[in-house]
Amino acid sequence: MSRNNNKIVPTPAIKRMPYYLAYVKGLKKRGEEYVSSKMIADYMHIDPSQITKDLSYTDIIGKTRVGYQVDSFIKILRDFLSFNIANKAFLVGAGSLGSALLHDKGISNYGLIIDTAFDIDKEKVGQEINNIKIEHMDQFRHLTEEKEVEIGIITTPVDVAQAVADLMVAWGIKAIWNFTPTKLQVHEGIIVEHTTMYSNIASLLNKLKNENNN
Amino acid sequence: MSRNNNKIVPTPAIKRMPYYLAYVKGLKKRGEEYVSSKMIADYMHIDPSQITKDLSYTDIIGKTRVGYQVDSFIKILRDFLSFNIANKAFLVGAGSLGSALLHDKGISNYGLIIDTAFDIDKEKVGQEINNIKIEHMDQFRHLTEEKEVEIGIITTPVDVAQAVADLMVAWGIKAIWNFTPTKLQVHEGIIVEHTTMYSNIASLLNKLKNENNN
Repeated sequence: MSRNNNKIVPTPAIKRMPYYLAYVKGLKKRGEEYVSSKMIADYMHIDPSQITKDLSYTDIIGKTRVGYQVDSFIKILRDFLSFNIANKAFLVGAGSLGSALLHDKGISNYGLIIDTAFDIDKEKVGQEINNIKIEHMDQFRHLTEEKEVEIGIITTPVDVAQAVADLMVAWGIKAIWNFTPTKLQVHEGIIVEHTTMYSNIASLLNKLKNENNN
Repeated sequence: MSRNNNKIVPTPAIKRMPYYLAYVKGLKKRGEEYVSSKMIADYMHIDPSQITKDLSYTDIIGKTRVGYQVDSFIKILRDFLSFNIANKAFLVGAGSLGSALLHDKGISNYGLIIDTAFDIDKEKVGQEINNIKIEHMDQFRHLTEEKEVEIGIITTPVDVAQAVADLMVAWGIKAIWNFTPTKLQVHEGIIVEHTTMYSNIASLLNKLKNENNN
Protein backbone atom coordinates (compact mmCIF):
# COMPACT_ATOMS: atom_id res chain seq x y z
CA MET A 1 0.00 0.00 0.00
CA SER A 2 1.18 3.49 -0.68
CA ARG A 3 -0.03 7.06 -0.44
CA ASN A 4 -0.64 9.91 -2.86
CA ASN A 5 -2.48 13.06 -1.92
CA ASN A 6 -3.33 11.33 1.36
CA LYS A 7 -5.04 8.52 -0.51
CA ILE A 8 -3.89 4.94 -0.10
CA VAL A 9 -3.03 3.47 -3.49
CA PRO A 10 -3.21 -0.33 -3.42
CA THR A 11 -0.26 -2.11 -5.06
CA PRO A 12 -2.48 -4.03 -7.53
CA ALA A 13 -3.75 -0.65 -8.84
CA ILE A 14 -0.16 0.59 -9.26
CA LYS A 15 0.71 -2.64 -11.08
CA ARG A 16 -2.20 -2.24 -13.51
CA MET A 17 -1.27 1.34 -14.42
CA PRO A 18 1.66 0.53 -16.77
CA TYR A 19 -0.85 -1.49 -18.82
CA TYR A 20 -3.22 1.50 -19.02
CA LEU A 21 -0.31 3.69 -20.03
CA ALA A 22 0.86 1.29 -22.75
CA TYR A 23 -2.67 0.94 -24.10
CA VAL A 24 -3.32 4.69 -24.24
CA LYS A 25 0.09 5.31 -25.86
CA GLY A 26 -1.01 2.85 -28.55
CA LEU A 27 -4.23 4.84 -29.08
CA LYS A 28 -2.24 8.05 -29.42
CA LYS A 29 -0.03 6.42 -32.04
CA ARG A 30 -3.21 5.58 -33.99
CA GLY A 31 -4.37 9.19 -33.76
CA GLU A 32 -7.07 8.80 -31.10
CA GLU A 33 -7.74 11.88 -28.98
CA TYR A 34 -9.93 10.48 -26.23
CA VAL A 35 -10.15 7.25 -24.25
CA SER A 36 -12.97 6.06 -22.00
CA SER A 37 -12.86 3.86 -18.90
CA LYS A 38 -14.97 1.40 -20.87
CA MET A 39 -12.31 1.10 -23.60
CA ILE A 40 -9.54 0.50 -21.06
CA ALA A 41 -11.78 -1.95 -19.18
CA ASP A 42 -12.50 -3.96 -22.34
CA TYR A 43 -8.78 -4.11 -23.05
CA MET A 44 -7.96 -5.20 -19.49
CA HIS A 45 -10.94 -7.57 -19.12
CA ILE A 46 -11.93 -5.92 -15.86
CA ASP A 47 -14.90 -3.81 -14.79
CA PRO A 48 -14.93 -0.11 -15.88
CA SER A 49 -15.58 0.89 -12.25
CA GLN A 50 -12.16 -0.57 -11.38
CA ILE A 51 -10.50 1.64 -14.00
CA THR A 52 -12.32 4.75 -12.74
CA LYS A 53 -11.30 3.87 -9.19
CA ASP A 54 -7.65 3.28 -10.10
CA LEU A 55 -7.46 6.55 -12.02
CA SER A 56 -9.11 8.46 -9.17
CA TYR A 57 -5.83 8.09 -7.25
CA THR A 58 -4.15 10.19 -9.94
CA ASP A 59 -4.96 13.72 -11.15
CA ILE A 60 -6.40 12.40 -14.41
CA ILE A 61 -9.83 13.97 -14.95
CA GLY A 62 -12.31 12.69 -17.51
CA LYS A 63 -15.01 14.64 -19.32
CA THR A 64 -18.58 13.33 -19.44
CA ARG A 65 -19.22 11.37 -22.63
CA VAL A 66 -15.81 11.94 -24.28
CA GLY A 67 -13.68 10.41 -21.54
CA TYR A 68 -10.02 11.15 -20.87
CA GLN A 69 -7.91 13.29 -23.21
CA VAL A 70 -5.12 11.00 -24.44
CA ASP A 71 -2.15 13.39 -24.23
CA SER A 72 -2.82 14.56 -20.71
CA PHE A 73 -3.68 11.00 -19.63
CA ILE A 74 -0.22 9.86 -20.73
CA LYS A 75 1.58 12.82 -19.20
CA ILE A 76 -0.17 12.65 -15.83
CA LEU A 77 0.11 8.87 -15.53
CA ARG A 78 3.82 8.89 -16.41
CA ASP A 79 4.41 11.57 -13.76
CA PHE A 80 2.32 9.66 -11.22
CA LEU A 81 4.33 6.46 -11.81
CA SER A 82 7.67 8.39 -11.63
CA PHE A 83 8.41 7.11 -15.15
CA ASN A 84 9.36 10.68 -16.15
CA ILE A 85 12.29 10.73 -13.71
CA ALA A 86 15.63 9.01 -14.26
CA ASN A 87 15.78 6.97 -11.06
CA LYS A 88 19.34 5.67 -10.76
CA ALA A 89 19.94 2.00 -9.95
CA PHE A 90 22.97 -0.20 -9.31
CA LEU A 91 23.00 -3.74 -10.67
CA VAL A 92 24.95 -6.50 -8.93
CA GLY A 93 25.87 -9.61 -10.91
CA ALA A 94 27.00 -8.97 -14.47
CA GLY A 95 26.58 -12.59 -15.53
CA SER A 96 24.19 -13.83 -18.15
CA LEU A 97 20.93 -12.30 -16.89
CA GLY A 98 22.68 -9.19 -15.56
CA SER A 99 24.37 -8.48 -18.89
CA ALA A 100 21.04 -9.05 -20.58
CA LEU A 101 19.40 -6.40 -18.43
CA LEU A 102 22.27 -4.00 -19.10
CA HIS A 103 21.49 -4.38 -22.80
CA ASP A 104 17.85 -3.41 -22.31
CA LYS A 105 17.61 0.31 -23.06
CA GLY A 106 13.84 0.10 -22.77
CA ILE A 107 13.61 0.24 -18.98
CA SER A 108 14.68 3.90 -19.07
CA ASN A 109 11.21 4.62 -20.49
CA TYR A 110 9.91 3.26 -17.20
CA GLY A 111 11.92 5.59 -15.00
CA LEU A 112 14.89 3.37 -14.31
CA ILE A 113 18.50 4.05 -15.33
CA ILE A 114 21.14 1.44 -14.52
CA ASP A 115 24.01 3.74 -13.59
CA THR A 116 26.70 1.17 -12.75
CA ALA A 117 27.03 -2.61 -12.63
CA PHE A 118 29.07 -4.56 -10.08
CA ASP A 119 30.71 -7.96 -10.07
CA ILE A 120 33.60 -9.74 -8.35
CA ASP A 121 34.87 -11.48 -11.50
CA LYS A 122 38.18 -9.85 -12.53
CA GLU A 123 37.43 -10.59 -16.18
CA LYS A 124 34.27 -8.48 -16.02
CA VAL A 125 35.41 -5.62 -13.79
CA GLY A 126 36.51 -2.68 -15.91
CA GLN A 127 34.43 -3.76 -18.91
CA GLU A 128 31.44 -1.82 -20.20
CA ILE A 129 28.11 -3.07 -21.50
CA ASN A 130 25.86 -0.61 -23.32
CA ASN A 131 28.05 2.22 -21.90
CA ILE A 132 27.45 1.01 -18.35
CA LYS A 133 30.67 0.39 -16.46
CA ILE A 134 31.22 -2.79 -14.45
CA GLU A 135 32.93 -1.96 -11.14
CA HIS A 136 34.30 -4.30 -8.49
CA MET A 137 31.85 -4.97 -5.67
CA ASP A 138 34.21 -3.27 -3.22
CA GLN A 139 33.31 0.06 -4.86
CA PHE A 140 29.60 -0.40 -4.15
CA ARG A 141 29.49 1.31 -0.74
CA HIS A 142 31.48 4.33 -1.80
CA LEU A 143 29.58 4.81 -5.07
CA THR A 144 26.16 4.40 -3.41
CA GLU A 145 27.01 7.34 -1.19
CA GLU A 146 28.63 9.42 -3.90
CA LYS A 147 25.85 8.94 -6.44
CA GLU A 148 23.01 8.82 -3.90
CA VAL A 149 21.61 5.63 -5.39
CA GLU A 150 18.65 4.04 -3.58
CA ILE A 151 17.75 1.18 -5.93
CA GLY A 152 19.67 -2.11 -6.23
CA ILE A 153 19.06 -4.82 -8.81
CA ILE A 154 20.18 -8.38 -7.99
CA THR A 155 21.07 -10.70 -10.86
CA THR A 156 23.70 -12.80 -9.08
CA PRO A 157 23.82 -16.56 -8.68
CA VAL A 158 21.12 -17.68 -6.25
CA ASP A 159 23.45 -18.72 -3.44
CA VAL A 160 24.90 -15.23 -2.94
CA ALA A 161 21.69 -13.23 -3.46
CA GLN A 162 20.89 -12.93 0.25
CA ALA A 163 24.44 -11.82 1.11
CA VAL A 164 24.32 -9.21 -1.67
CA ALA A 165 20.94 -7.97 -0.39
CA ASP A 166 22.40 -7.66 3.12
CA LEU A 167 25.33 -5.62 1.83
CA MET A 168 23.06 -3.42 -0.27
CA VAL A 169 20.90 -2.60 2.74
CA ALA A 170 23.92 -2.00 4.97
CA TRP A 171 25.33 0.36 2.37
CA GLY A 172 22.23 2.49 1.92
CA ILE A 173 20.04 0.84 -0.71
CA LYS A 174 16.34 1.30 0.07
CA ALA A 175 14.66 -0.70 -2.70
CA ILE A 176 15.75 -4.03 -4.20
CA TRP A 177 14.61 -5.48 -7.53
CA ASN A 178 15.36 -9.18 -7.26
CA PHE A 179 15.59 -11.39 -10.36
CA THR A 180 16.93 -14.48 -8.57
CA PRO A 181 14.63 -17.27 -7.38
CA THR A 182 15.43 -16.41 -3.76
CA LYS A 183 13.14 -15.29 -0.96
CA LEU A 184 15.13 -12.34 0.38
CA GLN A 185 14.92 -11.52 4.07
CA VAL A 186 15.27 -7.79 4.70
CA HIS A 187 14.29 -5.59 7.63
CA GLU A 188 11.10 -3.55 7.68
CA GLY A 189 11.06 -0.47 5.51
CA ILE A 190 13.25 -2.01 2.80
CA ILE A 191 11.30 -2.47 -0.42
CA VAL A 192 11.67 -5.70 -2.37
CA GLU A 193 10.15 -6.47 -5.77
CA HIS A 194 10.57 -9.91 -7.36
CA THR A 195 10.52 -10.57 -11.07
CA THR A 196 9.91 -14.27 -11.25
CA MET A 197 10.96 -15.29 -14.74
CA TYR A 198 11.75 -18.83 -13.64
CA SER A 199 8.34 -19.33 -12.05
CA ASN A 200 6.83 -18.13 -15.32
CA ILE A 201 8.86 -20.68 -17.27
CA ALA A 202 7.90 -23.45 -14.82
CA SER A 203 4.23 -22.59 -15.12
CA LEU A 204 4.34 -22.33 -18.91
CA LEU A 205 6.18 -25.64 -19.38
CA ASN A 206 3.90 -27.40 -16.93
CA LYS A 207 0.73 -26.22 -18.66
CA LEU A 208 2.17 -27.12 -22.05
CA LYS A 209 3.06 -30.62 -20.84
CA ASN A 210 -0.46 -31.11 -19.55
CA GLU A 211 -2.05 -29.79 -22.77
CA ASN A 212 0.07 -32.19 -24.78
CA ASN A 213 -0.86 -35.12 -22.53
CA ASN A 214 -4.58 -34.49 -22.88
CA MET B 1 -4.31 -26.03 -12.73
CA SER B 2 -2.45 -28.95 -14.19
CA ARG B 3 -2.18 -32.68 -13.77
CA ASN B 4 0.59 -35.09 -12.91
CA ASN B 5 -0.05 -38.72 -12.08
CA ASN B 6 -3.76 -37.81 -12.16
CA LYS B 7 -3.25 -35.24 -9.43
CA ILE B 8 -4.18 -31.62 -10.00
CA VAL B 9 -1.14 -29.41 -9.41
CA PRO B 10 -2.17 -25.82 -8.60
CA THR B 11 -0.24 -23.15 -10.49
CA PRO B 12 0.95 -21.42 -7.28
CA ALA B 13 2.62 -24.71 -6.26
CA ILE B 14 4.34 -24.96 -9.64
CA LYS B 15 5.51 -21.37 -9.30
CA ARG B 16 7.01 -22.02 -5.86
CA MET B 17 8.98 -25.04 -7.03
CA PRO B 18 11.81 -23.16 -8.83
CA TYR B 19 12.49 -21.48 -5.46
CA TYR B 20 12.71 -24.86 -3.72
CA LEU B 21 15.02 -26.08 -6.46
CA ALA B 22 17.29 -23.04 -6.22
CA TYR B 23 17.45 -23.31 -2.43
CA VAL B 24 18.30 -27.03 -2.42
CA LYS B 25 20.92 -26.52 -5.15
CA GLY B 26 22.52 -23.96 -2.81
CA LEU B 27 22.54 -26.54 0.01
CA LYS B 28 24.20 -29.06 -2.27
CA LYS B 29 26.89 -26.53 -3.16
CA ARG B 30 27.58 -26.13 0.57
CA GLY B 31 27.91 -29.90 0.96
CA GLU B 32 24.59 -30.64 2.65
CA GLU B 33 23.17 -34.11 2.04
CA TYR B 34 19.64 -33.77 3.38
CA VAL B 35 16.96 -31.11 3.49
CA SER B 36 13.76 -31.06 5.56
CA SER B 37 10.39 -29.47 4.78
CA LYS B 38 11.02 -27.26 7.81
CA MET B 39 14.24 -25.88 6.32
CA ILE B 40 12.56 -25.06 3.00
CA ALA B 41 9.57 -23.60 4.87
CA ASP B 42 11.81 -21.30 6.94
CA TYR B 43 13.49 -20.13 3.75
CA MET B 44 10.18 -19.50 1.99
CA HIS B 45 8.40 -18.03 5.04
CA ILE B 46 5.50 -20.41 4.59
CA ASP B 47 4.15 -23.32 6.61
CA PRO B 48 6.05 -26.69 6.38
CA SER B 49 2.74 -28.42 5.57
CA GLN B 50 2.56 -26.36 2.37
CA ILE B 51 6.01 -27.62 1.34
CA THR B 52 5.05 -31.23 2.07
CA LYS B 53 1.84 -30.79 0.10
CA ASP B 54 3.60 -29.18 -2.90
CA LEU B 55 6.23 -31.93 -2.97
CA SER B 56 3.57 -34.65 -2.74
CA TYR B 57 2.66 -33.84 -6.37
CA THR B 58 6.15 -34.98 -7.38
CA ASP B 59 7.88 -38.31 -6.82
CA ILE B 60 10.16 -36.85 -4.17
CA ILE B 61 10.06 -39.05 -1.08
CA GLY B 62 11.39 -37.97 2.30
CA LYS B 63 12.76 -40.16 5.07
CA THR B 64 11.51 -39.75 8.62
CA ARG B 65 13.81 -37.48 10.64
CA VAL B 66 16.48 -36.94 7.94
CA GLY B 67 14.18 -35.42 5.29
CA TYR B 68 14.80 -35.40 1.55
CA GLN B 69 18.08 -36.52 0.02
CA VAL B 70 19.49 -33.44 -1.75
CA ASP B 71 20.74 -35.05 -4.99
CA SER B 72 17.55 -36.96 -5.74
CA PHE B 73 15.44 -33.94 -4.71
CA ILE B 74 17.20 -31.84 -7.35
CA LYS B 75 17.00 -34.50 -10.04
CA ILE B 76 13.34 -35.34 -9.52
CA LEU B 77 12.22 -31.72 -9.24
CA ARG B 78 14.12 -30.69 -12.39
CA ASP B 79 12.48 -33.56 -14.26
CA PHE B 80 9.07 -32.69 -12.86
CA LEU B 81 9.42 -29.06 -13.98
CA SER B 82 10.68 -30.11 -17.45
CA PHE B 83 13.85 -28.11 -16.75
CA ASN B 84 15.90 -31.13 -17.90
CA ILE B 85 14.49 -30.91 -21.44
CA ALA B 86 15.56 -28.36 -24.07
CA ASN B 87 12.13 -26.93 -24.93
CA LYS B 88 12.57 -24.87 -28.09
CA ALA B 89 11.09 -21.38 -28.28
CA PHE B 90 10.84 -18.66 -30.94
CA LEU B 91 11.26 -15.03 -29.90
CA VAL B 92 9.55 -12.22 -31.80
CA GLY B 93 10.90 -8.68 -31.45
CA ALA B 94 14.68 -8.39 -31.42
CA GLY B 95 14.67 -4.85 -30.06
CA SER B 96 16.10 -3.80 -26.76
CA LEU B 97 14.36 -6.27 -24.42
CA GLY B 98 14.38 -9.04 -27.04
CA SER B 99 18.12 -8.73 -27.61
CA ALA B 100 18.59 -8.68 -23.86
CA LEU B 101 16.76 -12.00 -23.53
CA LEU B 102 18.80 -13.48 -26.36
CA HIS B 103 21.91 -12.66 -24.34
CA ASP B 104 20.64 -14.55 -21.31
CA LYS B 105 22.17 -18.01 -21.46
CA GLY B 106 20.75 -18.76 -18.03
CA ILE B 107 17.23 -19.64 -19.10
CA SER B 108 18.51 -22.84 -20.71
CA ASN B 109 19.00 -24.12 -17.14
CA TYR B 110 15.25 -23.72 -16.79
CA GLY B 111 14.35 -25.85 -19.78
CA LEU B 112 14.02 -23.12 -22.40
CA ILE B 113 16.16 -22.73 -25.52
CA ILE B 114 15.54 -19.76 -27.78
CA ASP B 115 16.06 -21.41 -31.15
CA THR B 116 15.43 -18.46 -33.48
CA ALA B 117 14.50 -14.79 -33.18
CA PHE B 118 12.26 -12.87 -35.57
CA ASP B 119 11.90 -9.23 -36.52
CA ILE B 120 10.70 -7.12 -39.44
CA ASP B 121 13.57 -4.62 -39.27
CA LYS B 122 15.87 -5.21 -42.27
CA GLU B 123 18.88 -4.04 -40.24
CA LYS B 124 18.32 -6.84 -37.74
CA VAL B 125 17.27 -9.69 -40.02
CA GLY B 126 20.27 -11.87 -40.86
CA GLN B 127 22.18 -10.82 -37.75
CA GLU B 128 22.99 -13.16 -34.86
CA ILE B 129 22.93 -12.55 -31.13
CA ASN B 130 24.57 -15.12 -28.87
CA ASN B 131 24.56 -17.54 -31.85
CA ILE B 132 20.80 -17.16 -32.28
CA LYS B 133 19.83 -16.12 -35.79
CA ILE B 134 17.36 -13.31 -36.41
CA GLU B 135 14.99 -14.24 -39.25
CA HIS B 136 12.35 -12.14 -40.98
CA MET B 137 8.88 -12.59 -39.52
CA ASP B 138 7.69 -14.03 -42.84
CA GLN B 139 9.75 -17.15 -42.04
CA PHE B 140 7.92 -17.75 -38.76
CA ARG B 141 5.14 -20.00 -40.08
CA HIS B 142 7.41 -22.22 -42.09
CA LEU B 143 10.02 -22.56 -39.33
CA THR B 144 7.40 -23.29 -36.65
CA GLU B 145 6.28 -26.28 -38.69
CA GLU B 146 9.76 -27.39 -39.65
CA LYS B 147 11.21 -27.16 -36.14
CA GLU B 148 8.01 -28.18 -34.34
CA VAL B 149 8.22 -25.23 -31.99
CA GLU B 150 5.32 -24.73 -29.58
CA ILE B 151 6.54 -21.81 -27.45
CA GLY B 152 6.56 -18.15 -28.56
CA ILE B 153 8.15 -15.26 -26.67
CA ILE B 154 6.84 -11.74 -27.37
CA THR B 155 9.20 -8.80 -26.83
CA THR B 156 7.79 -6.49 -29.50
CA PRO B 157 6.56 -2.91 -29.09
CA VAL B 158 3.26 -2.91 -27.21
CA ASP B 159 1.07 -1.86 -30.11
CA VAL B 160 1.87 -4.92 -32.23
CA ALA B 161 1.92 -7.51 -29.42
CA GLN B 162 -1.68 -8.64 -29.98
CA ALA B 163 -1.19 -8.99 -33.75
CA VAL B 164 1.98 -11.03 -33.14
CA ALA B 165 0.12 -13.25 -30.66
CA ASP B 166 -2.66 -13.81 -33.24
CA LEU B 167 -0.11 -14.83 -35.89
CA MET B 168 1.71 -17.11 -33.46
CA VAL B 169 -1.50 -18.94 -32.59
CA ALA B 170 -2.55 -19.16 -36.25
CA TRP B 171 0.83 -20.63 -37.10
CA GLY B 172 0.86 -23.32 -34.45
CA ILE B 173 2.28 -21.83 -31.25
CA LYS B 174 0.60 -23.30 -28.16
CA ALA B 175 2.19 -21.30 -25.34
CA ILE B 176 3.10 -17.61 -25.27
CA TRP B 177 5.51 -15.93 -22.87
CA ASN B 178 4.58 -12.24 -23.00
CA PHE B 179 6.99 -9.55 -21.79
CA THR B 180 4.98 -6.58 -23.09
CA PRO B 181 2.54 -4.67 -20.88
CA THR B 182 -0.38 -5.93 -22.98
CA LYS B 183 -3.36 -8.04 -22.00
CA LEU B 184 -3.31 -10.61 -24.78
CA GLN B 185 -6.60 -12.09 -25.94
CA VAL B 186 -6.18 -15.67 -27.14
CA HIS B 187 -8.64 -18.50 -27.55
CA GLU B 188 -9.13 -21.23 -24.99
CA GLY B 189 -6.39 -23.81 -24.77
CA ILE B 190 -3.62 -21.35 -25.64
CA ILE B 191 -1.29 -20.83 -22.69
CA VAL B 192 -0.16 -17.31 -21.81
CA GLU B 193 2.38 -16.35 -19.14
CA HIS B 194 3.12 -12.70 -18.42
CA THR B 195 6.39 -11.43 -17.01
CA THR B 196 5.48 -8.01 -15.74
CA MET B 197 8.78 -6.17 -15.39
CA TYR B 198 7.15 -2.78 -15.85
CA SER B 199 4.57 -3.42 -13.14
CA ASN B 200 7.45 -4.36 -10.87
CA ILE B 201 9.24 -1.11 -11.66
CA ALA B 202 6.03 0.89 -11.10
CA SER B 203 5.45 -0.77 -7.74
CA LEU B 204 9.07 -0.33 -6.63
CA LEU B 205 9.23 3.36 -7.60
CA ASN B 206 5.88 4.08 -6.00
CA LYS B 207 6.85 2.47 -2.69
CA LEU B 208 10.19 4.27 -2.74
CA LYS B 209 8.50 7.62 -3.35
CA ASN B 210 6.16 7.01 -0.45
CA GLU B 211 9.00 5.92 1.86
CA ASN B 212 10.91 9.07 1.00
CA ASN B 213 7.85 11.25 1.63
CA ASN B 214 7.28 9.83 5.10
